[in-house]
This record gives sequence, structure tokens and C-alpha cells, in this order.
Amino acid sequence: MEAAGVVREWRHVFKLDPERDITDDALERICMSGTHAILVGGSSGVTFENTVELLSRIRRYTLPCVLEVSDQEAVVPGFDFYFIPMVLNSRDPDMIVGRQQQAIRTYGTRLPWEWIVPEGYVILNEESTAAAVTKANTSLDVHDVTAYAKLAETLMNLPIFYIEYSGKLGDLDLVRATKRELDRARLFYGGGIHDLASAQAALEAADTIVVGNALYEDLDAALETVRVLEE
Amino acid sequence: MEAAGVVREWRHVFKLDPERDITDDALERICMSGTHAILVGGSSGVTFENTVELLSRIRRYTLPCVLEVSDQEAVVPGFDFYFIPMVLNSRDPDMIVGRQQQAIRTYGTRLPWEWIVPEGYVILNEESTAAAVTKANTSLDVHDVTAYAKLAETLMNLPIFYIEYSGKLGDLDLVRATKRELDRARLFYGGGIHDLASAQAALEAADTIVVGNALYEDLDAALETVRVLEE
Repeated sequence: MEAAGVVREWRHVFKLDPERDITDDALERICMSGTHAILVGGSSGVTFENTVELLSRIRRYTLPCVLEVSDQEAVVPGFDFYFIPMVLNSRDPDMIVGRQQQAIRTYGTRLPWEWIVPEGYVILNEESTAAAVTKANTSLDVHDVTAYAKLAETLMNLPIFYIEYSGKLGDLDLVRATKRELDRARLFYGGGIHDLASAQAALEAADTIVVGNALYEDLDAALETVRVLEE
Repeated sequence: MEAAGVVREWRHVFKLDPERDITDDALERICMSGTHAILVGGSSGVTFENTVELLSRIRRYTLPCVLEVSDQEAVVPGFDFYFIPMVLNSRDPDMIVGRQQQAIRTYGTRLPWEWIVPEGYVILNEESTAAAVTKANTSLDVHDVTAYAKLAETLMNLPIFYIEYSGKLGDLDLVRATKRELDRARLFYGGGIHDLASAQAALEAADTIVVGNALYEDLDAALETVRVLEE
């Protein structure tokens, strides 16, 4: 899969939420920061309108731009890639395969599959909106998570396994243990990365780190995380 | 995946249920019939003991023998391949990925993956034990099923998509429409095949047909289904 090959090169990604405001100046600094890609997505309030508006603004820059699809109503054409999360630790079948199946039903089976990258997701912060929206079972230990990772890599052949702590820095020993089990899948980590030190710690444990909320809380510190690529 | 390559050659398979009795004579006729493989599995009552006993009897013959794993307690070593059903239209996350994840957790991530073949299952006969046990949502039309098939083939990269009517001959137009959408995955069909005519109709719609219950109901007619391979 060509898309999966491109994604393998990424070690640092910024994630922007279409529902949240970002100034033109902030967006320029983010897109010119040296990060490897922009991921567009959010757990709630993502619409076609706010997604297309954010995409058109990001498109003034040349870096790769990916839509992480959470709602089939908000699938906007023109992104480089479309990531399709499959939330493996959800209690709701719709979050594992149901919404994805409905989207294929709606859009047809002749989709541009070469731009589509499925992700095996595990969401671990009980208090996050992401966990609530996806009905995630967050009571997992390291053996549970590594088993989900191996299932994603072997049975489902997913190119990305994504550990999401959404809003707080997670258990990086667990992340590291998961990476050790993966032979082919790329391990994405997101949650609580807000400065260079946390970025370094997370990138030491995972293959690719995702910095999101920090952009809206302390932009200067969030931009510092890109320096993790200098080392 | 080597296993998937072997499976691609199979067009006719007999399925034996470890919980049901079969005489030595019947088993010999089944194994010497010319069928391409024996699939061992059932929806209920499968134990380590009855599985190991059936395997040891089938092993007197040389054809490939596969365990379709429904219960991790009944995983017996010595089969040629292990099929892992993922019931995509289940209302229970455990039937989609949960039991599989628990099995990996139990057995460890260093499994012999080259012998393991995941199957994307859709179970469509509302009145079957299989539908009840897996909590399948059987209210699906042809567009739902083809969307599940495409999801299985593209997002999950599954080598087998299995339409199971379990106990009755299903909608073969739906099966045929599903086959048209699949480019790489092998389409298995099971349910209601009990004689040569029904075998011919089913094999005209699917890639591989599975004959199970008929072996216990009218063995002579069930054995006739293998003649579908002569044409």
C-alpha cells in the first residue's frame, strides 16, 4: 500500500481539530514548523463545513494533510490521505467495523483505496471525550494492549496501531512494550505531549508521535516538540 | 501468507462438528471423497476432548485438516491450519475482535502466524444457532453484505470472506453480487448445500463451498456434492 509507505517516514505529526479556532499566524507557524504531516480530526463537532474550511487554509502549505475520518458526513475531498480509525477496545461494534461498513455502503466499494489507511486504535484515558464517544473499555493492562496490537498487525494487517491517551501523558512503558511486539505496523502515540521533554519521552517509546491539544493551550511549547526531530 | 495461498486452491470443503457422532465408515467415505479439505468446527459444544478425538481420526487420511476456532479452550495442536472467524455483523464486540484478542493474550504474541488464517464472517440465517451464539444482526441487504465484504478485503486485508446461512440455502444472488465486488479475498459460502444440484448452484455463486449438516442428515447425497469438482 503506497499510503502506508509514505506514513512510515513520519515521526512527528500535528493534529488539528476543525471545531477549534486557530489564527492564520498560528497555522502558518504549525505548517512551517518542520512537522512531517498535519492530521485533521476530532472526537466531536466535526462537520463538512469546518473540515473544508480548515483544509483550504492548510492547503496554502505543502506538507501532507490527512483526514482522520470520524463521521462520514464530514468526509471532504482533497486530502492526501484518509485515515480510518477502527477502535478495537470499543464496547460498540459500530466503532470497530460498523460505521466503516456503513461508509462503504454509502460511498460505494470503488473508493480510492490507495489513499485510505486503516488504523487499529486503542483509547486508554477513561476521562477523555474520545473514550466516551467511542465507548472504549479503558481498563486494559499491558498484556491486553499488546494483544490488541498483535491482532491489528497479524489478523487485520493494519499498517498503523495507535495508542491514544487523549489529554494526558500515558504509560510510556506500556507503549514501549507494545512497540517491541510489532514487526511491521507503525506505532502511533498521542496524548499529553506538550513540550520538548514529553515529545522526547514519547518518541523514545513509539514510532510516531501526535501533538494536538497542546497547540491550543501553549503554542510556543507545542512547536518546540518538533525539535525532537533534530536529534 | 502461505496458508492463504493453499486455501485459494480449495473449491469444496466438508465441515465436521466435533460434538456430533460420525462412524468410522462415514468418516472414511468423507475423507476419501475427493473434497479439498476438512474443516473442523461448530457453534456450540466444541471441547478440547471431542476436537482432539476427531482430529486423530481424520489424521488417518492425507487431506488438509483445518480447525475453525470458536473457543480458545478447544485449540488442539496438530491441525494444518487454524481459521479465526471474525464475525463482522455481530452485535457483540467479543465476536468481532474481543475473543481473538483474549486468545492472543492467553497464548502469547509469538504464535505460528503462518498457519493462522483470519476469516471475515457474515452470518445471515436468523434462526440458526450460529446467529444466536454470535449475536449476529441478520437484517442485512445485499449492499450491507457487499460493504462488509469490501471492508474485510480492503481495510482488514482478510484472505477469506465467509457468508454463512447455517442450515438453509441462502440468497445466492446476494452471494454472487458479493463475489463480483471481491478482487483478492476468497468467498466461502456455507448453508443448505445437501446434494449435487445445490452444490452446483452455490459454487456458481461463490469461490469455495462448505458442506456440513448434510453429512449428518443424508450422507450419500452429501457425498454427491463432491461431483461438483468434476465439471
